[in-house]
Amino acid sequence: MPITARQLSSAFPPPVMEARAWAAAADLPADMPLLNLSQAAPVDPPPDALRQAMAQIVLNDPDAHLYGPVLGLPALRDEVAQQWTQAYGGAVTAESVAITSGCNQAFCAAIAAVADAGDAVILPTPWYFNHKMWLDMAGVEARLLPCGPGMAPQVARAAALIDDRVKAIVLVSPNNPTGAEYPAEVVAGFAALARARGIALIIDETYRDFHSQDGAPHDLFAGDWQDTVIQLYSFSKVYRLTGHRVGALVASPARLTQIEKFLDTVTICPNQLGQRAALWGLQNLTDWVASERAEILARKTAIQALFKGMPEWAVLGCGAYFAYVGHPFDMTSDTLAQRLVAEVGLLVLPGTMFAPRAAQGGDGSAERQLRIAFANADTQGIATLGARLSAFTP
Amino acid sequence: MPITARQLSSAFPPPVMEARAWAAAADLPADMPLLNLSQAAPVDPPPDALRQAMAQIVLNDPDAHLYGPVLGLPALRDEVAQQWTQAYGGAVTAESVAITSGCNQAFCAAIAAVADAGDAVILPTPWYFNHKMWLDMAGVEARLLPCGPGMAPQVARAAALIDDRVKAIVLVSPNNPTGAEYPAEVVAGFAALARARGIALIIDETYRDFHSQDGAPHDLFAGDWQDTVIQLYSFSKVYRLTGHRVGALVASPARLTQIEKFLDTVTICPNQLGQRAALWGLQNLTDWVASERAEILARKTAIQALFKGMPEWAVLGCGAYFAYVGHPFDMTSDTLAQRLVAEVGLLVLPGTMFAPRAAQGGDGSAERQLRIAFANADTQGIATLGARLSAFTP
Repeated sequence: MPITARQLSSAFPPPVMEARAWAAAADLPADMPLLNLSQAAPVDPPPDALRQAMAQIVLNDPDAHLYGPVLGLPALRDEVAQQWTQAYGGAVTAESVAITSGCNQAFCAAIAAVADAGDAVILPTPWYFNHKMWLDMAGVEARLLPCGPGMAPQVARAAALIDDRVKAIVLVSPNNPTGAEYPAEVVAGFAALARARGIALIIDETYRDFHSQDGAPHDLFAGDWQDTVIQLYSFSKVYRLTGHRVGALVASPARLTQIEKFLDTVTICPNQLGQRAALWGLQNLTDWVASERAEILARKTAIQALFKGMPEWAVLGCGAYFAYVGHPFDMTSDTLAQRLVAEVGLLVLPGTMFAPRAAQGGDGSAERQLRIAFANADTQGIATLGARLSAFTP
Repeated sequence: MPITARQLSSAFPPPVMEARAWAAAADLPADMPLLNLSQAAPVDPPPDALRQAMAQIVLNDPDAHLYGPVLGLPALRDEVAQQWTQAYGGAVTAESVAITSGCNQAFCAAIAAVADAGDAVILPTPWYFNHKMWLDMAGVEARLLPCGPGMAPQVARAAALIDDRVKAIVLVSPNNPTGAEYPAEVVAGFAALARARGIALIIDETYRDFHSQDGAPHDLFAGDWQDTVIQLYSFSKVYRLTGHRVGALVASPARLTQIEKFLDTVTICPNQLGQRAALWGLQNLTDWVASERAEILARKTAIQALFKGMPEWAVLGCGAYFAYVGHPFDMTSDTLAQRLVAEVGLLVLPGTMFAPRAAQGGDGSAERQLRIAFANADTQGIATLGARLSAFTP
């Protein structure tokens, strides 16, 4: 019997892999192919022009095959700094930008920078499951903050959770899994709380490019942010580069000096081709991203219209890639999710993947909720979603 | 003043980045360009045929741009399993192979699988510095095992270090930084010790493809290995893919179930293009690798000959990419290394990056030693190395 670390064992297995296993086990008829609305990821490759550019880099840029700086390609750090300064109306310098091997790694690095084993971090529920997993395996307590109306976390409730062990508050906006876009004043309220209590605010903006409002989603960078804010970002969704693992982390240069150690030991450097692809995207794909965003927002509108016609379902949050819904059935969400894939060929994720079950201290909401990652469903797919939910017999 | 995690702060900064800063600060005359023997990494891109193959994948394989399984590309796991089974004379199945974002990440995952914060791991000195950094930031004690003759660790000394807190022994062979190739019976002795004490043996074989002996470097996989052995491997050196971040980890399927959680949260999946490049290399570059190995071994012979003519220097270990030498000067190795780059344009790393200084409990050897990563020095470069060491005036 091999030894096994307690911390790693305590984390649950990757939910997306578990959901894939459900789908693989489903024996669906030919006229009911799987409708997979489980993962928040593009299903198409990057636009052709970007692929052409990447092929040229592979052939003609020797440095794209070799180690680079731990904190990332200088030209990419510069470009992020310039575009962020413009987008957020505040000063972000290249020395405050690190490139990471995806946004999940940025989260891990941020936690490593602020919390030791035995510390605690405030995590709103529903959580993004990989955040919960990392906290568990790092031995850091996830101090749960159930969201309030509009699936938004509340500053006053967070304040009541802070003690000497709490080192950070985590926000994800637009949110995974709920799709909720936190108002700028809510984000500012959390930053003020974090600053007042001397802890960090970690804000994950993976889905920023699909926000329903134009302009900066918050004004954190316009103020005195460096001691408090750690921002996380992903190039995966916006340029369809999920397979290339490129994200970013914005923090003070002092924090990056610590984070550099973490990134060095975990991956040495982000992969070089992915970084060059992200840079090319930032410099060349602004119009294309705008059209992608318009399409996602049209799908959001279609999802909202669909559920308006199904009043027994509750849309709790909707935005970016996700709708988070309350289901009308007398069964738990994990049972429902497995039956939906087996019986009507619809794969969505149950709320039990995003919050504790009642038996583990939850308030019962996890059992009543589902996450629908609608971004990959076109008009026809959204109609199919409605038809299959309606066809399901509990 | 921002909060900072104690564990991460306790790790030293990335030595390679520190050495790069020394080189950047050196003001060298035009007729004495920098001879950089500091990093163990190819300086040329992959062979042309591999780059052509990668460009075709970028253009024609949509899946190469999207998420893949956490544990890696199935075809690559299969190919590793088949080639390992043949190379080591034992049974390694695809279910025992995980692909990682580089071999450093494989080490982090292995440690996460066996040790919690507060546990300990036996680490021979001189260490590979990123191993020491990760243990520090994970809150895992590095219980140091100074190497004996031939820069080999000794089983009996390791046995005396084991207590209830020790969860694993780490070996690196061929070794970074010493170049030492551990005899198969030494490796077997450590495996027997680990098995008898119920702990893990983590063996890092990043430099396996440049071993001086033909055939399997050990016979661990021929025996009952699954509860004990975790093997780490890198595709970075052998196919010059350092910039693409692809490594491997071989462990029991039960361990991989735990390790999958770590890899999922830290990177979601290894980058897809790098994995396909590694697979192409395994399937097409056997002859090319053999010629690369022959060239490295010729350079090893040249290094040994060079130091035979410089008897005031001691060659403590020599193999794969590295020579580990004792210097003859009355100064510490870190002072010497900084003076070598500034005064004779030679960048090598001091022993103080690979073991504790005397002031931190070391036995004084770190101050007397240097690592020379000779793999990137051709015949002319090795002659230049000799000339510059000879020209240095202490």
